[in-house]
Parts: sequence; C-alpha cells; structure tokens
Amino acid sequence: MKNKIFYPLFCLVFAACSKSADPIKISSIADKEYEPQKWQANYPAEYELWEKTKEPTPAGKSYYKKGWDTDGKIYDKLSEFPYMPLLFKGWGFGIEYNEPRGHYHMLKDVLEVDSARRKAGGVCLTCKTPYAQELRDKYGKDYFSKPFETVHSWIPKNHRELGVACVSCHKGENADLRILNDFTLGAALRNMNFDLKSASHQDMRTLVCAQCHVTYVVSKDKEMKSQNVFFPWNNSKYGKINIEDIIKTIKSDPANLEWTQAVTGFKLGFIRHPEFELFSNQSLHWKAGLSCADCHMPYVRYGSYKVSDHRVMSPLKNGLRACVQCHSQGEEWLRDRIKFTQDRTVSMLIRSGYSTAVSAKIFEKLNKARSEGKNIDKNLYDKAREYYEQAFYRIVFIGAENSLGFHNPQETLRVLADASSFAAKSEALLRQAAAQAGIYLPEKIDLELNKYLTDRGEKKLNFDSKVEFKDPFKIQDYF
Amino acid sequence: MKNKIFYPLFCLVFAACSKSADPIKISSIADKEYEPQKWQANYPAEYELWEKTKEPTPAGKSYYKKGWDTDGKIYDKLSEFPYMPLLFKGWGFGIEYNEPRGHYHMLKDVLEVDSARRKAGGVCLTCKTPYAQELRDKYGKDYFSKPFETVHSWIPKNHRELGVACVSCHKGENADLRILNDFTLGAALRNMNFDLKSASHQDMRTLVCAQCHVTYVVSKDKEMKSQNVFFPWNNSKYGKINIEDIIKTIKSDPANLEWTQAVTGFKLGFIRHPEFELFSNQSLHWKAGLSCADCHMPYVRYGSYKVSDHRVMSPLKNGLRACVQCHSQGEEWLRDRIKFTQDRTVSMLIRSGYSTAVSAKIFEKLNKARSEGKNIDKNLYDKAREYYEQAFYRIVFIGAENSLGFHNPQETLRVLADASSFAAKSEALLRQAAAQAGIYLPEKIDLELNKYLTDRGEKKLNFDSKVEFKDPFKIQDYF
Repeated sequence: MKNKIFYPLFCLVFAACSKSADPIKISSIADKEYEPQKWQANYPAEYELWEKTKEPTPAGKSYYKKGWDTDGKIYDKLSEFPYMPLLFKGWGFGIEYNEPRGHYHMLKDVLEVDSARRKAGGVCLTCKTPYAQELRDKYGKDYFSKPFETVHSWIPKNHRELGVACVSCHKGENADLRILNDFTLGAALRNMNFDLKSASHQDMRTLVCAQCHVTYVVSKDKEMKSQNVFFPWNNSKYGKINIEDIIKTIKSDPANLEWTQAVTGFKLGFIRHPEFELFSNQSLHWKAGLSCADCHMPYVRYGSYKVSDHRVMSPLKNGLRACVQCHSQGEEWLRDRIKFTQDRTVSMLIRSGYSTAVSAKIFEKLNKARSEGKNIDKNLYDKAREYYEQAFYRIVFIGAENSLGFHNPQETLRVLADASSFAAKSEALLRQAAAQAGIYLPEKIDLELNKYLTDRGEKKLNFDSKVEFKDPFKIQDYF
Repeated sequence: MKNKIFYPLFCLVFAACSKSADPIKISSIADKEYEPQKWQANYPAEYELWEKTKEPTPAGKSYYKKGWDTDGKIYDKLSEFPYMPLLFKGWGFGIEYNEPRGHYHMLKDVLEVDSARRKAGGVCLTCKTPYAQELRDKYGKDYFSKPFETVHSWIPKNHRELGVACVSCHKGENADLRILNDFTLGAALRNMNFDLKSASHQDMRTLVCAQCHVTYVVSKDKEMKSQNVFFPWNNSKYGKINIEDIIKTIKSDPANLEWTQAVTGFKLGFIRHPEFELFSNQSLHWKAGLSCADCHMPYVRYGSYKVSDHRVMSPLKNGLRACVQCHSQGEEWLRDRIKFTQDRTVSMLIRSGYSTAVSAKIFEKLNKARSEGKNIDKNLYDKAREYYEQAFYRIVFIGAENSLGFHNPQETLRVLADASSFAAKSEALLRQAAAQAGIYLPEKIDLELNKYLTDRGEKKLNFDSKVEFKDPFKIQDYF
C-alpha cells in the first residue's frame, strides 16, 4: 500500500531532479543555420573546441596515423604504402592521396589537392560542405555532374572553405542530433529498413558521423558523368554491413564503375573510408554499446559543465582519455594493445596489397601480349580477373579505413586474409595462362614502382621513403 | 610518530589474520606421490573435481570444440576439416585424429587410438603419464626409442591408464605448484633464460599447463628412431614464442623432420597443440595478467573453502563461469563474442588449409611427371616448396591449437593470413612450372579427398560428413 502511494510521487520528484541543466540560451538559432558563429553564443564550449580542429594534433602519438600533427608535415599515403600508386594509377587517388587534416580543414583539403581528385564534379562536395543537401535539392542532377568549381561557386562566398559545421549534426532549435545529408545517409538507412525515428540518442552519436565516415559510390551515366552518390549498403542490414555486400552492390551495375585502372585496363569501382561500416559490423566496442562519440569525443570539463569534446580526434592523440574511462591499465599498456592490432593489420595490408599489385602487373603483360596477337586462355584470364577484383576491393576497404584494424580487429584481418587468398590465386591462374601462351614470367615480378611513385600530377609529387611502412614481422621479405 | 609505532604491530596482526587457512593435513604425502588416492584425504575437494574429468562435458555448449560431450560421440578432426587427412597422409595423424577427451582419459586415448599414432615409441608417453621424467631418467635413450608398448609396460601396473595426476603439477609436501617434466619444459625454459625460481605463483598457474599444452619436436636419429623430445623455442623469448621462431627451429636440423608426407614426398616436422605458445605471445588475456588456471580452473565453493576447479574444461562448457567474474555482459553476449572470433578463424583455417592441399596435389603431379622424365624448372619448384612448407606449418599450428583463435585472435588471424599467402604463392609458381613443362592443370584441382578420408587404418575409419565445418562466410565457394 505504502509503495502504491509513494511511487508516483517519488517518480515525479526524481524526474524533476534528474533533468539535465539546459544550456544558456542567449539567442535563437535557425534550424539550418550554417554559420558556426551564430551558434557560438549559446554553445561557447562546443564552438571553441570545434574551432580547435584547425590546430594540428600532437606529433608522435599515433604510430600509423600522422594526419595533421605538430610536425607540420602532410603525410603522403602513396609513399606510406607504395603498392597504392601502382593500383590507383588512372585517376586522382593515384596522384595525390594524403592523410587528412582535421574537420576544420576538410573542404580546404579538397581545394588544395591535385585537381584530378575533383574530376567527378560537384558530387565531391557531398561530405565536404554542410550545403550539400541544399545544393542537391536546388540543382538536382547538376549538383552531381557539373564541374566541381561550378558547384563550389554556388556555396555562399563566406562559406566556401567551411567544412563540418554545427549544422552538420545538430538542429538549430535545441542542438538535438540530426542527419543533415538525407539524400545519402537517410536514403541508405531507409533502404536497410532502419527507421531514424527509432534511433536512440546513442545511435545518433554514431549516425551523425556516418554521414561522411562511410564508403560511397559515385554512379556514372554513359558518358561517365556523375549522376548520383549513394552508400552501397542495399544488400546489408544495420549493424552488419560487410565487404561482401559492398562488393556485390558495386559489381551489380556498370554505372557503379567509376574509373579505369591504368595498369590492367579494368573498369572498377572504389571504396572510401568505411569507418562506420567496419566499426558497426559487430565489433567489440560496437557490441558493448559504444558510439563514435564515446571514443572520439570524450567528455571534457568546461567550467561547471561537462561537454563532449568537439575537437574530434584519434584517442591516441589525446592521451587515450576516452579509453582510460573504462580501461584501468593506463595509457602505455593500452597504446601497446592498439599497436598489437595495427602491426598485424599493416603486415597483412602490405602482404595483400603487394600481392594484388603483382597480379595487376601480370595482367598488364598478358594484355599487351594479347594485343600483339597471342592467344590467352579465356577461362583462366576471366577467373583470375574475378579473383583480382575481389582482392582489390578488400585491400582498398581496409587501406582506406582510418583505424588500421582497431575499429574491428578480427573482421579486418579476415578481410585482408581473404584479400591475400584472392590475389595470390589470381596470380596462380595468370602464371599458368602466361606459360601456356609461351610468355616467360620471372619468379619475382618487377613492379616498376618508381614509375608510379614519382613525378605525380600538377605538383610533381615524389616518393618519400621516410614515411614508408615496412612489414613489422618482415614476412614480406619472402615475396 | 604514531605511525612508526603502530605500523609494525599492524603488519603483524594483519599478516596473522590474512594467512590463508591451511588445508586439513591428515596424512603426509611423498614429494612424488603418483597415486591420486594418497592425496585424496588431504585434498578431498580437488580430488573429487579432478576425478570428474572422467565424466563427459555438457553437449551443445561449444560450437567448434566437441571433444568429450554428453552426446557420447568421439569427434573426428579429419572429418571436421577434410583437408587434414590429405595433408597428414603418411603417418598416424592422417589415420585417426580425434578431439580429445578430458584429462582423466589422456593415456587411455593414446592406448585406444590407431597404433600408427604410437609409432614414435616410448617418447609418446611424455605428456600422457606422470612417470615420464622418471622413466626418462632411468632408461635414458631407450625411453624415447623403444616401442611404445615396451616403455608403457615399465609403468607400474596399476598406473598404466593414469593420465594427469596430482603429482603432475604439485609437490607432495605442501601442494605447491611445480614442474614435474624437467627434461622438456624445464630445459626449454632454461634455454630461454627464464629462471623458474623467479616464477610467481601466477606464472606457475600457466607453466604447469605448459608441460603438455605446447608443441614439441620428436627428434630422430639416422634410422628415424626417436632420440629426444624438445620444445622448439630456442629462437624465442618467454612471452614471445611465435610461429616464425618455431618453424626456424624445426627447419634448422634434419633430425627434426619426423615423417614423410605421402602426397608430396617431403620430409617434414610437425606442430602440436601450442596453447601455451599462442596464449603467452602477448595475447590480451595474457597481458592482462591472467593464467591458464584463471579461465580453465575458476574458483568453486566446497563447503567453507574456495578451491580452483580441478575439473579442467573449456569455459564454454561450464556457463562461462570464469569469464563472468570480470565481464558483466552475461553468458549469451560473451558466447557470441567467442564465436565471432572462432568463425573468422575457421573461415581462414579452411581457406589456408585447402589452399595448401591444392599445392600438395600439384606437387604430386609434378613429382610424377619428373619421375617420368619431364624437366621441371628447379628454381620455381624449390621456391614453391619453401612457400608450401611455410604455409603447412602455419595451418598445423592453428589447426592443432585448441581454442580456434580465442587464445589470441589477432595473432591467430595473422598466422592464417600468412599461411594463405604462402600457400597460394606456392600454387602460383607450381602452375607456371607445370605449364612450362607442358603439363596441363585444370582451373580447379581435384583433391581426391575421398581417397584420404575413407577406410583409414585399423578401424577402417570413414568420413563423417555431419561433423564437417563449412566456411561460415561462404568465401570458400569461390575456390
């Protein structure tokens, strides 16, 4: 009886007490207010932290990811992994492919990179400006297909260098999290029958990041003009987007093949920074209920407030603040564990990357021989090509993912192990086809890496041997 | 001042209070008392639990390890992974290779298995009877080389079926942990400059298990008689014994090559159940300070005592009792995580296992062609053989390890990924060598698995398709 009377009263009191303090509301903010300074008065802490993403992060903290550190260096991914320029020769990624700077610089990064990287057109702005949804709504197909410079000029002048902004993730009215890019992430979630209305706050703390930290397809019309951008998750479920489903989607429609690989002559698709896909595919931290923000935006004190750190960065670069909240072993111990996984990922990325490159070079030889009239066994060649593409997409998937395995160690190593199997199996069939056609292949194929590493693009970029990653286990020396 | 006076007093009192209660000491036990019943009076709980290892464990709890369950079935590893009988053809492991029963049955298991598995001689008793050290001390070289049945008859009659016993791990005087098999584990630790005197109790809770849950080499004299058994850790450090070091040791001396693989004709070494090596090689649980006993012998109540559970078994089979002490997510959640790792291990074990088998079959064809006078490119053949052996030892390492990756997920997948690379690279060179010699190989090599799976040994064992593990990711269908 006592309980019956007191329980509702208790709930009322408790609810009143537990309501979190509202932020100081000084001015009202429009629902889609692009200008960060308009949010500053109401959210001074978040604004200040966000603005700090323009500053470089501490150097020497992350062994494998040195994007935008106090050493002032721009890290050339093509020098870090020299098999990449060979495989990416044929379009922008093979010319200039840098470790990115922070959120503040994301649009500037695209403006400063070799122009070949902007060739797909306005569509490239999708993850670079908060105006993408508005531009797409206003200009339709032109948003995707018109030259990058044209579409870029449609952005208000004062925001032509504005990267991720408050509006990208928050509603103006109350700063609630929301998905701004409905035409990409919104559509992809609907395709998977994931109802955004049912998303919890914790879901949203991952999904706002998934607006950009995902792979995508820039689909092409018959003249190879960009006609759309979408996330290749049609065959997947929320929480189980895997590489197999992505490859299936890419290969399901010739419109999804975005470029022609110079070395092999194959039209191929591509895969970009699939952080969300890899992390949400049943990784340990995902299953433990963590969101992107838990690790990349841990709480910081700001006067009497606790705010999530809007200076988004790798936990490795801020003393593993996020990690030590749960893991009591201390920074050095944890750092060692991260490297344990990343060493293995890098070793296998090198193995599978070079193995894929070897196949590519044999295709090059066979294509040449065929063009000179030699007869190449069609069945062996076609099968080898299928294996080759399966390997290629896998190494691009992990090579583009920004955690070097940490976001999902076992899944990463599974994907790379399969990449190795596919690549070497491709080589096996190609060597047989070559020998049958009387073409002699040496035991070690010369990759002619110099050809792909030097004198790249407008800036005449060159190999920087100092940043190359070598196999930490030295197994690559066998090959 | 106060502290100075009271501190020693406090320590004294505290030390007195915290001293753990001594076990009821009813009778004195000889230092090397082999008879478990002599220990029973002093250690009734441990005895009772140890004796329970004769009982089968609950069925349906472990997806991939069904050694000795209440379903009464003996699980045939060669049917679980059908590439194994092909690769192991040539000696006992290719005839009968069962998932083991518990500790109680370990000597009986050897007596009941196909006699080909006992062919190495008395040396096979090393991990099966507590008398190994004594027999070796008494009979010297004969212990290793005399027929198994002869050496077995040197064990006192009443202990000819006695497996691991109290004496295997404990001193009679006070039940302190000790290494009984000094000639194997003791010697291996000394080789690595690990001083057993410096071992903590926690170290010992792993090291007593490392007397048997390790790989070993039965080295041979020129007549292929067993002359010794040792752990191939010479190139390693304590806490960093890896597959590369083990392979290096095996290949360093022809005496370490124990058998001739029927399919290829190659003399090879072998690797057995390297649980200690894989776990102690910087695995997460090892680095967190855990010992084997923490997970496989969690504390159980016995009246007013807490004793470590001497019914040693997989944590999967007793409700993950050990795991839930630290991990609060509950049994089902944890079970799902274990399978997450094991699925990936099995997928890659299948991929690399079959890939190695494909190479083996091509070697068979090339050997035949060579014997018929065909000229096979020596450089390609020799390189392919080196790659093949590198793959072979890796798949045996993980295939024999009893956790299917759980003991060290990232390291397991690294080892298997390299196995795949080596195996397929071997195939690549072999296909070229074959084609150059005018030998036509089909795209899919017929493994003739039936030949190896059926009518095996004295018991005419056959393939049990119901227990075969298929690739959980279905990638194997490509190959």
